[in-house]
Amino acid sequence: MESKRIVLALGGNALGNTPEEQLSLVKGTAKTIADLIEQGHKIVIGHGNGPQVGMINLAMEHSALNGGNTPAMPFPECGAMSQGYIGYHLQQAISDELERRHIEKDVASVITQVVVDENDPAFLKPTKPIGAFMSKEAADKIAEEKGYTFVEDAGRGYRRVVPSPQPKKIVELNVVNKLIKEDCVVITVGGGGIPVIETADGLKGVAAVIDKDKSSARLAEDLDADMLVVLTAVDRVCIDFNKPTQKEMPELTLADCKKYIEEGQFAPGSMLPKVEACMNFVASKKGRVALITSLEKAGEAMKGNTGTRIVD
Amino acid sequence: MESKRIVLALGGNALGNTPEEQLSLVKGTAKTIADLIEQGHKIVIGHGNGPQVGMINLAMEHSALNGGNTPAMPFPECGAMSQGYIGYHLQQAISDELERRHIEKDVASVITQVVVDENDPAFLKPTKPIGAFMSKEAADKIAEEKGYTFVEDAGRGYRRVVPSPQPKKIVELNVVNKLIKEDCVVITVGGGGIPVIETADGLKGVAAVIDKDKSSARLAEDLDADMLVVLTAVDRVCIDFNKPTQKEMPELTLADCKKYIEEGQFAPGSMLPKVEACMNFVASKKGRVALITSLEKAGEAMKGNTGTRIVD
Repeated sequence: MESKRIVLALGGNALGNTPEEQLSLVKGTAKTIADLIEQGHKIVIGHGNGPQVGMINLAMEHSALNGGNTPAMPFPECGAMSQGYIGYHLQQAISDELERRHIEKDVASVITQVVVDENDPAFLKPTKPIGAFMSKEAADKIAEEKGYTFVEDAGRGYRRVVPSPQPKKIVELNVVNKLIKEDCVVITVGGGGIPVIETADGLKGVAAVIDKDKSSARLAEDLDADMLVVLTAVDRVCIDFNKPTQKEMPELTLADCKKYIEEGQFAPGSMLPKVEACMNFVASKKGRVALITSLEKAGEAMKGNTGTRIVD
Repeated sequence: MESKRIVLALGGNALGNTPEEQLSLVKGTAKTIADLIEQGHKIVIGHGNGPQVGMINLAMEHSALNGGNTPAMPFPECGAMSQGYIGYHLQQAISDELERRHIEKDVASVITQVVVDENDPAFLKPTKPIGAFMSKEAADKIAEEKGYTFVEDAGRGYRRVVPSPQPKKIVELNVVNKLIKEDCVVITVGGGGIPVIETADGLKGVAAVIDKDKSSARLAEDLDADMLVVLTAVDRVCIDFNKPTQKEMPELTLADCKKYIEEGQFAPGSMLPKVEACMNFVASKKGRVALITSLEKAGEAMKGNTGTRIVD
């Protein structure tokens, strides 16, 4: 098989909710990644951090507000922590798996910032819930003190929401590029990257969550990757998902994608951002291909036996 | 000035105790580092994480034990988080400072594991206090459940202690080497590195704290660096420190160091491990030089105007 430069976007299902779960799940993830490396591909890994940054943010908040005697921790810093936490488990598992297969290759987790536009319309309408549920009174108090936005969440209480802006630029792109050139497996844009804005004083972290598939697409584009592989819970994208008429799609053109999005075939916050991320990458240059499949079937999908290929 | 490959070990005073303090202090740290880069040197940065990993560990523990609904977080994972947290601030500040000076250079924080020997005698006698103070009853209960060691700490209660083993091998050494070759400023071995032991199943994190100066010395040795620079709170190592006979030392040979250590001139847990780390590096190969000085005077010390040089 031809050797490709591949950006792999790992979903939350590759990581789990506790350190023990994560440590166990990454072993399977590492096998898939090692399979692709054995096929001769150069792999860059982007990953989500929803449950992990949520957990860190909650714990830091709980301790700061309830006598734990630790300082309040801003959200971008929690994201940086999650990159360290997830990167450590991933790089350890991948290195171990490669060693077991007698493949000599270095694995590196790079702390990665991603620039967003402070005028991104997403900042006017925060949508991503983070942190703890609280009473209206507690939420109103923090909103007044810190300028946070809170929303009522399905009867369970009030929760802070942050914006989800578009990724504009991967700050550590050169570093990633150099590591690929040096034949390393690179773990980057964890949780979509630490969101930063450009100011006269330099970069500044902002409380936001960048969609990790969009950041991975941005990264794939900027690295001139051959392929973006988005891993999710299903082997293939489906039309009429969960209906009697459900149909697995082996291939979707950009035109197909547009049509199905208009029909509302892809769930917002689930398959829709994945398809959109793939479309961004495929549309960015002739010949670029994206693939949506499951972690378990990634090797088979690369051989063309399953998965949904998104093409021009 | 001749261009040198330098490993810089940053002390806790370069970082501070809260995210706001850290964000502010790293700006000064970045100036010193940019000065050395302007002098033409290639810089690799090791740093401590005592207050930071302590804070993360405390917050995760407090939340897990007091209804925060977040899982208990093992100590090595807290260390990985601290690398992400500190690396993010450092890389941002250094990049900003370099950009201000119109120096084009990439900065990378690499999540770094350091192998320790599970038979290291340090494991028999844990000495480093981490986490919260608690009552004897609470400590006894956790000790029984989890096998942790607790010690009574100066009347303030019981506190968990972990071992401080010697660093044997930097797992991500190749990655660091490749990034230096590619002309990057590299941030690595944060907090002395995430301590791992080698097992039949691969690497495994252990609850321990590796001395960051010793890890930086190990790194300097393995990278074949020209110089190890240990930054601390004083401009020069002193004999008879804080006595009327106090004397600043511009240079110490290995023989001097041995003599003064025997005399008890250097405080354990403070100047002693720094001097020992420098001795390890200087003794490892002919011509290797170490320098102990303050963050503020590092540029001047490199020119020979202050600091203590440790030589063969």
